[in-house]
Amino acid sequence: MVSGDLVISQAEHRSRVEKIRDQLKKSRSAALYLTNPTRILYATGFSHISTERPLALVIPQDGPIFMMGPHLEEDHVKLDSRLIREFFSYSDYPGPTHPIRRFVKILREKGLAGSKIAADSFEGAAGGWGYRGPSLRDLLKHAKMVDGRNIVDNLRRVKSKQEIHLLKESAQWAEKAHDILIGDIAPGVHDALVGVKASYEALTGMMKKLGDRYHQLKWGLSPVVVGCRGQVGPGSAIPHAVFCKRKIRRGDVLVTEAGVEVGGYTSELERTVIVGRAEPREKKYFETMLKAQDAALGAFKQGAACSQVDVVARKAVEAAGLAGALRHHVGHGIGLDGHEPPWLDQGEKTFMKSGMVFSCEPGLYFPGFAGFRHSDTIVITRNGMDFITEYPRSLEKLTV
Amino acid sequence: MVSGDLVISQAEHRSRVEKIRDQLKKSRSAALYLTNPTRILYATGFSHISTERPLALVIPQDGPIFMMGPHLEEDHVKLDSRLIREFFSYSDYPGPTHPIRRFVKILREKGLAGSKIAADSFEGAAGGWGYRGPSLRDLLKHAKMVDGRNIVDNLRRVKSKQEIHLLKESAQWAEKAHDILIGDIAPGVHDALVGVKASYEALTGMMKKLGDRYHQLKWGLSPVVVGCRGQVGPGSAIPHAVFCKRKIRRGDVLVTEAGVEVGGYTSELERTVIVGRAEPREKKYFETMLKAQDAALGAFKQGAACSQVDVVARKAVEAAGLAGALRHHVGHGIGLDGHEPPWLDQGEKTFMKSGMVFSCEPGLYFPGFAGFRHSDTIVITRNGMDFITEYPRSLEKLTV
Repeated sequence: MVSGDLVISQAEHRSRVEKIRDQLKKSRSAALYLTNPTRILYATGFSHISTERPLALVIPQDGPIFMMGPHLEEDHVKLDSRLIREFFSYSDYPGPTHPIRRFVKILREKGLAGSKIAADSFEGAAGGWGYRGPSLRDLLKHAKMVDGRNIVDNLRRVKSKQEIHLLKESAQWAEKAHDILIGDIAPGVHDALVGVKASYEALTGMMKKLGDRYHQLKWGLSPVVVGCRGQVGPGSAIPHAVFCKRKIRRGDVLVTEAGVEVGGYTSELERTVIVGRAEPREKKYFETMLKAQDAALGAFKQGAACSQVDVVARKAVEAAGLAGALRHHVGHGIGLDGHEPPWLDQGEKTFMKSGMVFSCEPGLYFPGFAGFRHSDTIVITRNGMDFITEYPRSLEKLTV
Repeated sequence: MVSGDLVISQAEHRSRVEKIRDQLKKSRSAALYLTNPTRILYATGFSHISTERPLALVIPQDGPIFMMGPHLEEDHVKLDSRLIREFFSYSDYPGPTHPIRRFVKILREKGLAGSKIAADSFEGAAGGWGYRGPSLRDLLKHAKMVDGRNIVDNLRRVKSKQEIHLLKESAQWAEKAHDILIGDIAPGVHDALVGVKASYEALTGMMKKLGDRYHQLKWGLSPVVVGCRGQVGPGSAIPHAVFCKRKIRRGDVLVTEAGVEVGGYTSELERTVIVGRAEPREKKYFETMLKAQDAALGAFKQGAACSQVDVVARKAVEAAGLAGALRHHVGHGIGLDGHEPPWLDQGEKTFMKSGMVFSCEPGLYFPGFAGFRHSDTIVITRNGMDFITEYPRSLEKLTV
């Protein structure tokens, strides 16, 4: 670690653990048992690749934090974490004895097998990739296991200064990556290639500037994910398209995206880009989308209902007679996960607090023709909101 | 779709659905309810980004296949799938009515609410990214929900000719990507950058050669994932490292990887690479790892126990007095998921069948110094085994 490292500090992780312990005390739980890699990362700063091999972090109300997991993570934990004091390993999965049975034995030795345990999985494992196993809750007959997902997840809803700093750093590099992308978009180019090229160039610049201060925490070819993700021409009408079926053509509408992971956090920046010149109907749809985003942006403030942001964006679209083009709500919380609660959705009951971070991305979709969506990341402040992503939004600036 | 498309054919998907229906008949279940995106992809060829928004595929024993999901996937399904005949959408999550309650209503209308339903999730949703909801099993009081995960997963254990063809195509491009990577590895280069560059160059060549025959089905910056993933110098001793902390240096041991998604399938190719000249102990560890891989490779044959492959690899390492350097079993099944059952593990009860595909990757790890692992993908044949990845394995060829 060097000074100015772009990761959450040890002190903040210790403070998060203390908050978790306060919650355990309040709910009279002896420990929190976590299997979800994002929750483990949030609590400790330790990042791992979650597989079929069971792995659990245990934060007792009192006493040292420990981890139980596969032998292949033992050296990793020792090297990367100062918070996780003990690691109890099993050889591998499925192994001669099922790992969950080993976990039960360890919990018993730790004096937890007859206690109330808050857990994010009653199975006792994240359960990816063909995992099968006995339920931890069934094996821990004398313990009382309760749903502990909210203990961490509620803390994650309001971001700290450090988290907002990392998100802003993320956004800064996303903006640069998007500049490179826009510079390379041209008829005849395939969207998969233009994205990977922009990722390489943006990452080169970022590594040069940040050097050892930068730490990628999440698994992936590149921490810079930039491109169109298949949202090219008619593909832009599919909000969750995966891959373009053809090269970019003159006249295409694109929905682009750029996200850069910094210390585990990734902001969201998306733009509607026109290749060539916008036709009248493209202009109309673009301007309506922009009006909806402006309306939504105006509704972000401390104390406002999350649902209200979606209501005002929808009204702006209805006013233009285009409500039939909506396909999703206006946004979501964002942080260590790409989507997080609270949701900017009419079914959401949450009221906004200073420090909450959201995407703002009303979208209009016309099957067979095109889609129109910008996404910006914003943070609620004491006086209203701030942009985390700062990038041109006008048709003029986004025509290439 | 063009002739020679590198995806599983419609005919094979129809045959998979028929096999699923046969299983439903045998177990007297009225329908299979799937939420896992890999299982849905296997059954139908439809690929989607699984989020907090519930989505389920229902394959009734009789009658048309239908999907229930968020509005934003409706046009996507209509465009990409001919097997999924009906899509029942909800506006968004969480929405005014929770989607799972909508699903219950649809299942009731379909006459399934009082039936035996095999499901891969009793919750009724894949449950990512902060999802919360009532349990489908609790709401479907008159249905009998049973664990249906194995209905698809058992089919996936033995690969078809088409699947093996896609895995071989995948391997061919992985080999090319690895050649590019090796050509670029040099002291002073950062592993993150060298990987993204090799991905770009390999993808450029692949798209040029395959053109419209190629279809990326999975979400990701690039279908070509190549690099060291942090396994550089002492980082190579961490099998699941995420990111390198420094630039590559002369004398470093690297563990590289190259995988290319073709029609959803990705083979696994990993190599131990020495930058400069191998020291005597590096030679010893490399040669021992190679002997362990040779021993394992010799144990693959129809009818052999999966566990035996791990036993013989371990014996080869023990014979060299290095058993303490082992950190994981020798491999895993591979297909639509990066890791799949059956496992090459001493706790695995499966016997090998022709058409099963495995990684073969015994590894030796020396904390603070280096790790040594090759991974190859192999398929069991009637006469023994075939390599899916074909790439040099010797120290001489892997010293750069």
